[in-house]
Amino acid sequence: MRIDIITVVPDILKSPFEASILERAIKKGLVEIHLHNLRDYVSDNYKQIDDYQFGGGAGMVMMIEPIDKCISKLKSERAYQEVIYMTPDGERLEQRTANSLSLHENLIILCGHYKGVDQRVRDQFITKEISIGDYVLSGGELGAAVLCDSIIRLIPGVLGNETSALTDSFQDDLLAPPVYTRPAEYKGWKVPEILTSGNFPKIEAWREDQAYKRTKALRPDLLKED
Amino acid sequence: MRIDIITVVPDILKSPFEASILERAIKKGLVEIHLHNLRDYVSDNYKQIDDYQFGGGAGMVMMIEPIDKCISKLKSERAYQEVIYMTPDGERLEQRTANSLSLHENLIILCGHYKGVDQRVRDQFITKEISIGDYVLSGGELGAAVLCDSIIRLIPGVLGNETSALTDSFQDDLLAPPVYTRPAEYKGWKVPEILTSGNFPKIEAWREDQAYKRTKALRPDLLKED
Repeated sequence: MRIDIITVVPDILKSPFEASILERAIKKGLVEIHLHNLRDYVSDNYKQIDDYQFGGGAGMVMMIEPIDKCISKLKSERAYQEVIYMTPDGERLEQRTANSLSLHENLIILCGHYKGVDQRVRDQFITKEISIGDYVLSGGELGAAVLCDSIIRLIPGVLGNETSALTDSFQDDLLAPPVYTRPAEYKGWKVPEILTSGNFPKIEAWREDQAYKRTKALRPDLLKED
Repeated sequence: MRIDIITVVPDILKSPFEASILERAIKKGLVEIHLHNLRDYVSDNYKQIDDYQFGGGAGMVMMIEPIDKCISKLKSERAYQEVIYMTPDGERLEQRTANSLSLHENLIILCGHYKGVDQRVRDQFITKEISIGDYVLSGGELGAAVLCDSIIRLIPGVLGNETSALTDSFQDDLLAPPVYTRPAEYKGWKVPEILTSGNFPKIEAWREDQAYKRTKALRPDLLKED
């Protein structure tokens, strides 16, 4: 899989791809991440990529031309399944979106900044608008990193143990059950006895029950969807 | 404001705080970010911070002792208003959470990794569990960066123009209206005439109407809440 990220602040995105699971996925050749600095697609000497909004008001708007140039160049080099724009008013990212995007070969992710991009960019070039949640960030870069992480960890071979991702929260519309590790007792706080019983069918039943109870208590909306 | 982030992969978090708005907020002295590597709180030579889960199953669990040591040390130095744990089954982050957290003085954010932390950590030390959305990431680090960004940009003086954050999506339960900037025409695609009319009361009415229409089309749930 190849992901091209278009941004005005590529520096933000350096370390998330240089550590931990994403770094290993890149080193294993399972995914390629290419960062594109929008300022490289500006012809004037000021490297201007944004301007005041028409009609007045606070906040700058990213101009269409550099974005058009960058996306057009990429599209001339290979076929992309989606050109994604990170924006708080996009479709909310859910696990199923990550699942389906993880099956694609080439994706472009455009990061907004300031007040966002000129609406004509969205109308003409974007095939999918994604929001990582109902809150506003300084720019789309952290959203893009989150989206990449949610996708890349699902690519076979990225996680050490492939059953691991399948038992995550949301893969079955249930939150994960509580987990415990050594020591069995710490400052008087004990692990539930069932977990050290060695009775695996009972442990499995306990976990299912706990996952259901936790979901019902914290996120009843997940159960209602069925 | 001071934010202490506890993590096993502090490297992931370097660049988000060294660029753009967050970097400026730190340089202006409006916020301090302290990254704490959990491995510095482990006494054995292997620097082990995780272990297999009791009861079996895929995925490692972060142990209670190093987390206890790190949190206790921080708490002995100053008072914290919240000890936050980033987890997909936490309370979903919304703009109003960011608004209220931005008023605090000292926050601890604990990043989960692998299968998460020993449940006793959550029971004993955590005052607030936050999820940035209904999807699973490799760890809590990107979630912590997202949370910090959503909070820090609201601190007075961080954004150049303070009215800017108030006109963002979600601050009034409406999505933002479309924005446009120069050129007024690009490849035949024109800016809506109203925006270049100079009639500001009409422009304001158009924007409100657009914000309402966009919200109704994309996120009717936001309107229903009132």
